[in-house]
Amino acid sequence: MKQSSMPITGMFKVSILYPNGEDKKFDMDYYEKNHMPMVAGFLGKNLRFYEIDRGVAGRASNDKAPFVAVGYFFIDDVAEYNKAIAQNLDTIRTDIQKYTNIQPVIQISEIKYVGYNKASKE
Amino acid sequence: MKQSSMPITGMFKVSILYPNGEDKKFDMDYYEKNHMPMVAGFLGKNLRFYEIDRGVAGRASNDKAPFVAVGYFFIDDVAEYNKAIAQNLDTIRTDIQKYTNIQPVIQISEIKYVGYNKASKE
Repeated sequence: MKQSSMPITGMFKVSILYPNGEDKKFDMDYYEKNHMPMVAGFLGKNLRFYEIDRGVAGRASNDKAPFVAVGYFFIDDVAEYNKAIAQNLDTIRTDIQKYTNIQPVIQISEIKYVGYNKASKE
Repeated sequence: MKQSSMPITGMFKVSILYPNGEDKKFDMDYYEKNHMPMVAGFLGKNLRFYEIDRGVAGRASNDKAPFVAVGYFFIDDVAEYNKAIAQNLDTIRTDIQKYTNIQPVIQISEIKYVGYNKASKE
Protein backbone atom coordinates (compact mmCIF):
# COMPACT_ATOMS: atom_id res chain seq x y z
CA MET A 1 0.00 0.00 0.00
CA LYS A 2 1.38 3.39 -0.94
CA GLN A 3 1.56 5.62 2.12
CA SER A 4 0.73 9.28 2.27
CA SER A 5 3.35 11.67 3.68
CA MET A 6 0.81 13.76 5.50
CA PRO A 7 1.05 15.05 9.07
CA ILE A 8 -2.18 14.18 10.90
CA THR A 9 -3.47 15.31 14.31
CA GLY A 10 -2.51 12.80 17.01
CA MET A 11 0.53 11.49 15.15
CA PHE A 12 3.87 11.83 16.98
CA LYS A 13 6.95 13.44 15.56
CA VAL A 14 10.60 13.20 16.53
CA SER A 15 12.55 16.32 15.52
CA ILE A 16 16.35 16.15 15.38
CA LEU A 17 17.60 19.74 15.22
CA TYR A 18 21.24 20.53 14.35
CA PRO A 19 22.14 23.98 15.77
CA ASN A 20 24.27 26.30 13.66
CA GLY A 21 27.57 27.68 14.98
CA GLU A 22 31.25 28.24 14.38
CA ASP A 23 33.21 25.31 12.89
CA LYS A 24 30.08 23.22 12.51
CA LYS A 25 30.05 20.69 9.68
CA PHE A 26 27.05 18.94 8.17
CA ASP A 27 27.14 16.71 5.08
CA MET A 28 23.56 16.99 3.80
CA ASP A 29 24.17 14.52 0.99
CA TYR A 30 25.30 11.76 3.36
CA TYR A 31 22.46 12.58 5.77
CA GLU A 32 19.86 12.27 3.00
CA LYS A 33 21.26 9.27 1.14
CA ASN A 34 22.67 7.19 4.01
CA HIS A 35 21.83 8.18 7.56
CA MET A 36 18.12 8.97 7.43
CA PRO A 37 17.18 5.96 5.23
CA MET A 38 19.17 3.70 7.61
CA VAL A 39 17.39 4.97 10.74
CA ALA A 40 14.04 4.89 8.89
CA GLY A 41 14.69 1.21 8.22
CA PHE A 42 15.16 0.57 11.95
CA LEU A 43 11.72 2.04 12.68
CA GLY A 44 9.70 -0.37 10.56
CA LYS A 45 5.97 0.11 10.31
CA ASN A 46 5.91 2.58 13.21
CA LEU A 47 7.26 5.16 10.75
CA ARG A 48 4.68 6.91 8.59
CA PHE A 49 7.25 9.05 6.76
CA TYR A 50 10.32 11.18 7.38
CA GLU A 51 11.34 14.67 6.32
CA ILE A 52 14.63 16.54 5.97
CA ASP A 53 14.82 20.34 6.13
CA ARG A 54 17.78 22.51 5.16
CA GLY A 55 18.15 25.77 7.14
CA VAL A 56 17.94 28.83 4.88
CA ALA A 57 17.55 31.89 7.14
CA GLY A 58 16.47 33.18 10.51
CA ARG A 59 13.97 35.88 11.38
CA ALA A 60 15.39 38.21 8.72
CA SER A 61 16.53 36.99 5.27
CA ASN A 62 20.18 37.78 6.06
CA ASP A 63 20.15 36.13 9.51
CA LYS A 64 21.91 32.78 9.76
CA ALA A 65 19.42 29.90 10.20
CA PRO A 66 19.31 28.80 13.88
CA PHE A 67 19.53 25.19 12.66
CA VAL A 68 21.70 23.94 9.77
CA ALA A 69 19.34 21.03 9.24
CA VAL A 70 16.37 19.34 10.89
CA GLY A 71 15.30 15.72 10.46
CA TYR A 72 11.81 14.49 11.38
CA PHE A 73 10.35 11.04 11.92
CA PHE A 74 6.54 10.94 11.85
CA ILE A 75 5.57 7.95 13.99
CA ASP A 76 2.59 6.30 15.66
CA ASP A 77 4.19 5.14 18.91
CA VAL A 78 6.88 6.89 20.98
CA ALA A 79 7.77 3.89 23.19
CA GLU A 80 8.26 1.71 20.12
CA TYR A 81 10.46 4.42 18.57
CA ASN A 82 12.65 4.65 21.70
CA LYS A 83 13.01 0.85 21.74
CA ALA A 84 14.09 0.69 18.08
CA ILE A 85 16.64 3.48 18.57
CA ALA A 86 18.03 1.90 21.77
CA GLN A 87 18.47 -1.43 19.96
CA ASN A 88 20.52 0.26 17.21
CA LEU A 89 22.23 3.00 19.22
CA ASP A 90 25.85 2.03 18.52
CA THR A 91 25.27 1.84 14.77
CA ILE A 92 23.46 5.18 14.76
CA ARG A 93 26.11 6.96 16.86
CA THR A 94 28.97 5.67 14.71
CA ASP A 95 27.16 6.82 11.57
CA ILE A 96 26.46 10.33 12.93
CA GLN A 97 30.22 11.00 13.06
CA LYS A 98 30.35 10.50 9.28
CA TYR A 99 28.22 13.57 8.49
CA THR A 100 28.41 16.04 11.38
CA ASN A 101 30.24 17.32 14.45
CA ILE A 102 27.05 18.91 15.80
CA GLN A 103 25.32 17.63 18.94
CA PRO A 104 21.64 17.63 17.91
CA VAL A 105 18.69 18.78 20.01
CA ILE A 106 15.97 16.12 20.21
CA GLN A 107 12.30 16.98 20.61
CA ILE A 108 9.32 14.62 20.78
CA SER A 109 6.10 16.37 19.80
CA GLU A 110 2.48 15.51 19.26
CA ILE A 111 0.86 16.96 16.15
CA LYS A 112 -1.87 19.11 17.61
CA TYR A 113 -3.44 20.60 14.52
CA VAL A 114 -3.06 20.80 10.73
CA GLY A 115 -4.96 23.52 8.87
CA TYR A 116 -5.37 25.71 5.80
CA ASN A 117 -6.41 29.30 5.53
CA LYS A 118 -9.94 30.12 4.46
CA ALA A 119 -8.81 32.05 1.38
CA SER A 120 -6.92 29.15 -0.19
CA LYS A 121 -9.80 26.75 0.41
CA GLU A 122 -12.16 28.67 -1.87
CA MET B 1 -9.97 22.87 -4.88
CA LYS B 2 -9.20 20.91 -1.76
CA GLN B 3 -5.55 21.24 -0.87
CA SER B 4 -3.32 18.48 0.39
CA SER B 5 -1.40 19.04 3.63
CA MET B 6 1.70 17.30 2.37
CA PRO B 7 5.29 18.50 2.71
CA ILE B 8 6.94 18.35 -0.73
CA THR B 9 10.61 18.77 -1.73
CA GLY B 10 11.35 22.37 -2.71
CA MET B 11 8.54 23.84 -0.60
CA PHE B 12 9.60 26.37 2.05
CA LYS B 13 8.71 26.18 5.69
CA VAL B 14 8.70 28.80 8.43
CA SER B 15 9.16 27.24 11.88
CA ILE B 16 8.24 29.27 14.96
CA LEU B 17 9.78 27.50 17.95
CA TYR B 18 8.80 28.43 21.53
CA PRO B 19 11.65 27.41 23.90
CA ASN B 20 10.72 25.88 27.24
CA GLY B 21 11.91 27.45 30.50
CA GLU B 22 11.06 28.72 33.96
CA ASP B 23 7.91 30.87 34.24
CA LYS B 24 7.06 30.36 30.58
CA LYS B 25 3.38 30.49 29.64
CA PHE B 26 1.77 29.23 26.46
CA ASP B 27 -1.99 29.06 25.82
CA MET B 28 -2.25 26.30 23.20
CA ASP B 29 -6.00 26.73 22.83
CA TYR B 30 -5.70 30.42 21.91
CA TYR B 31 -2.75 29.67 19.61
CA GLU B 32 -4.71 27.01 17.73
CA LYS B 33 -8.11 28.72 17.58
CA ASN B 34 -7.09 32.37 17.16
CA HIS B 35 -3.47 33.19 16.44
CA MET B 36 -2.49 30.63 13.82
CA PRO B 37 -5.71 30.93 11.75
CA MET B 38 -5.30 34.75 11.81
CA VAL B 39 -1.71 34.65 10.53
CA ALA B 40 -2.66 31.94 8.00
CA GLY B 41 -5.29 34.36 6.66
CA PHE B 42 -2.61 37.04 6.12
CA LEU B 43 -0.58 34.63 3.95
CA GLY B 44 -3.25 34.01 1.31
CA LYS B 45 -2.53 31.56 -1.47
CA ASN B 46 1.19 31.49 -0.65
CA LEU B 47 0.28 29.19 2.26
CA ARG B 48 -0.10 25.52 1.39
CA PHE B 49 -0.96 24.48 4.95
CA TYR B 50 0.10 25.03 8.56
CA GLU B 51 0.88 22.72 11.45
CA ILE B 52 0.96 23.05 15.23
CA ASP B 53 3.08 20.74 17.42
CA ARG B 54 2.87 20.35 21.19
CA GLY B 55 6.16 19.49 22.93
CA VAL B 56 5.95 16.14 24.77
CA ALA B 57 9.52 15.15 25.74
CA GLY B 58 13.20 15.56 24.99
CA ARG B 59 15.83 12.93 24.23
CA ALA B 60 14.57 10.73 27.09
CA SER B 61 10.87 10.27 27.91
CA ASN B 62 11.27 12.11 31.24
CA ASP B 63 13.25 15.04 29.78
CA LYS B 64 11.36 18.30 29.37
CA ALA B 65 10.65 19.11 25.72
CA PRO B 66 13.14 21.74 24.45
CA PHE B 67 10.18 23.58 22.88
CA VAL B 68 6.73 23.98 24.48
CA ALA B 69 5.18 24.36 21.03
CA VAL B 70 6.20 24.77 17.41
CA GLY B 71 4.14 26.38 14.64
CA TYR B 72 4.90 25.81 10.94
CA PHE B 73 3.78 27.59 7.79
CA PHE B 74 4.39 25.60 4.59
CA ILE B 75 4.76 28.19 1.84
CA ASP B 76 5.83 28.61 -1.78
CA ASP B 77 7.61 31.97 -1.59
CA VAL B 78 9.73 33.36 1.26
CA ALA B 79 9.81 37.00 0.02
CA GLU B 80 6.03 37.03 -0.26
CA TYR B 81 5.77 35.57 3.27
CA ASN B 82 8.08 38.26 4.70
CA LYS B 83 6.04 40.96 2.96
CA ALA B 84 2.72 39.66 4.34
CA ILE B 85 4.13 39.45 7.89
CA ALA B 86 5.68 42.95 7.68
CA GLN B 87 2.34 44.40 6.54
CA ASN B 88 0.58 42.89 9.58
CA LEU B 89 3.36 43.07 12.15
CA ASP B 90 1.59 45.26 14.74
CA THR B 91 -1.51 43.06 14.74
CA ILE B 92 0.60 39.90 15.04
CA ARG B 93 2.78 41.27 17.87
CA THR B 94 -0.22 42.46 19.88
CA ASP B 95 -1.86 39.07 19.49
CA ILE B 96 1.25 37.12 20.59
CA GLN B 97 1.01 38.74 24.05
CA LYS B 98 -2.40 37.10 24.47
CA TYR B 99 -1.03 33.53 24.49
CA THR B 100 2.63 33.58 25.51
CA ASN B 101 5.51 35.36 27.23
CA ILE B 102 8.06 33.35 25.23
CA GLN B 103 10.30 34.97 22.61
CA PRO B 104 10.13 32.47 19.74
CA VAL B 105 13.03 31.28 17.57
CA ILE B 106 12.30 31.70 13.85
CA GLN B 107 13.76 29.41 11.22
CA ILE B 108 13.21 29.47 7.45
CA SER B 109 13.94 26.09 5.89
CA GLU B 110 13.70 24.44 2.52
CA ILE B 111 12.19 20.97 2.46
CA LYS B 112 15.05 18.90 1.11
CA TYR B 113 13.56 15.42 1.11
CA VAL B 114 10.46 13.46 2.14
CA GLY B 115 10.72 9.67 2.32
CA TYR B 116 9.42 6.36 3.61
CA ASN B 117 11.27 3.29 4.73
CA LYS B 118 11.49 0.31 2.44
CA ALA B 119 9.70 -1.99 4.88
CA SER B 120 6.54 0.09 5.11
CA LYS B 121 6.33 0.45 1.33
CA GLU B 122 5.87 -3.28 0.80
